[in-house]
Amino acid sequence: MVFPSLQAAGQAEAMPRYRAIVEYEGDGFVGWQRQDNGLSVQEVIEEALVNFCGAQVVVAAAGRTDSGVHARGQVIHFDLDHDHPADDVMGAVNFHVRPARVALLAVELAAPEFHARFDALARHYSYRIINRRAPLAVDHGSAWHVVAPLDVGQMNLAAARLVGRHDFTSFRAAQCQARSPEKTLDRLTVTRDGDQVIVRAQARSFLHNQVRIMVGALKQVGEGKWTPDDVTAALEAKDRARGPQTVPPHGLYLTRVDYSPADGPLNG
Amino acid sequence: MVFPSLQAAGQAEAMPRYRAIVEYEGDGFVGWQRQDNGLSVQEVIEEALVNFCGAQVVVAAAGRTDSGVHARGQVIHFDLDHDHPADDVMGAVNFHVRPARVALLAVELAAPEFHARFDALARHYSYRIINRRAPLAVDHGSAWHVVAPLDVGQMNLAAARLVGRHDFTSFRAAQCQARSPEKTLDRLTVTRDGDQVIVRAQARSFLHNQVRIMVGALKQVGEGKWTPDDVTAALEAKDRARGPQTVPPHGLYLTRVDYSPADGPLNG
Repeated sequence: MVFPSLQAAGQAEAMPRYRAIVEYEGDGFVGWQRQDNGLSVQEVIEEALVNFCGAQVVVAAAGRTDSGVHARGQVIHFDLDHDHPADDVMGAVNFHVRPARVALLAVELAAPEFHARFDALARHYSYRIINRRAPLAVDHGSAWHVVAPLDVGQMNLAAARLVGRHDFTSFRAAQCQARSPEKTLDRLTVTRDGDQVIVRAQARSFLHNQVRIMVGALKQVGEGKWTPDDVTAALEAKDRARGPQTVPPHGLYLTRVDYSPADGPLNG
Repeated sequence: MVFPSLQAAGQAEAMPRYRAIVEYEGDGFVGWQRQDNGLSVQEVIEEALVNFCGAQVVVAAAGRTDSGVHARGQVIHFDLDHDHPADDVMGAVNFHVRPARVALLAVELAAPEFHARFDALARHYSYRIINRRAPLAVDHGSAWHVVAPLDVGQMNLAAARLVGRHDFTSFRAAQCQARSPEKTLDRLTVTRDGDQVIVRAQARSFLHNQVRIMVGALKQVGEGKWTPDDVTAALEAKDRARGPQTVPPHGLYLTRVDYSPADGPLNG
């Protein structure tokens, strides 16, 4: 005779935790998180895991990217019913997610207490702008098209005003659910390569839409409509109505998430 | 009273010639050239010009790219019925081509005898490979997915065997219409940046499918299935059946076309 409660307890303790690096094309998804109004990346991966192991699996992610936002280095974790080789998990999920444009780049066994969201030490985002007169043909949907010439030097001066610990109330979505508007922005830089302008942002965590609103400010400065002082003024106003516009999602990429070396390197 | 024949002759002499740099996403087109079986980039641009100036215009291009091949720096020329500011031509064509993923990046008046195809001194192509186990999500349709690890050092050794003047019979499509299979390949290099492997090829002109067949050879070498000597043997066989496979079009980009400085710089 088997003691179901004991067996269940034993299984629960033994359930292996996996972590994975995920890439996805944001177009066509309502975002990372499951929602009633459309397909989410989370649902695609969870359904693929159901197809693989036959049991419902909940997947947690480092960044709850919005609709249209892309990821090249999202990190997730999930528990499976029993031990599967990490390579098998990767192959099976990448098979079952098709034709959705989602792919696991790397999968490995993680410590049982690893948490993709709460253990993240740094999140890295890139925002891609094509700065030219002509509309985008090849890069349509993978970058934001800005016609007015952008002064990258001025944009970097303005970016420096946002780095550090601040109350980012002017730079978060009205519906942002974070308890505190205070965040520490570790890095915000702007580089140009031909007609491509890339904004890179790094922080332990960001407020809802924070990167896209910061890019909105930098674009105003790049076009000469704002000065770096205007960015400081917007920050100090602590008022979303004084902040700049939120730029479109399709230029934004979650590129990397860092964890403690104690969590081991992800081979992505 | 007007003398129609004289007027027509006068107009013909005065017809201004324009040249332009063109970008397009190859997916969804039968290629550059007009064909009966689907939409070509040529047709899209010619129809946009009809909408702009009301007259039928024939557009000539430097490279007759195949179905699925992308361009970031195709060069074209065409004659208009009378002088229009180049900026107006660019704006109008970019408006009328929509929603096709085609864009003129720069337009300028050219010398009356300028010919995009016959005056080209060098054509530059890039072939983009993503070399990893996971399928492509973000880069789906804009790169070729190769799973087996590619040895870029060996690929460069093999590439050097193809540089120079050769009979490229083994490296051209069966339906290639060039009179001579002899071409001078000026450059063929392979570089890696993370999981992205880029093959760059430069020549005054290429045979039909030559770049994609050369990349096929380099891939064989990168995977260790061929040695650089096998590439030399394929070249010397002068037999398409001894050549490697043609790789898919969606990794290929026409990136640039060079002309004599006497033709003036294109501000693209």
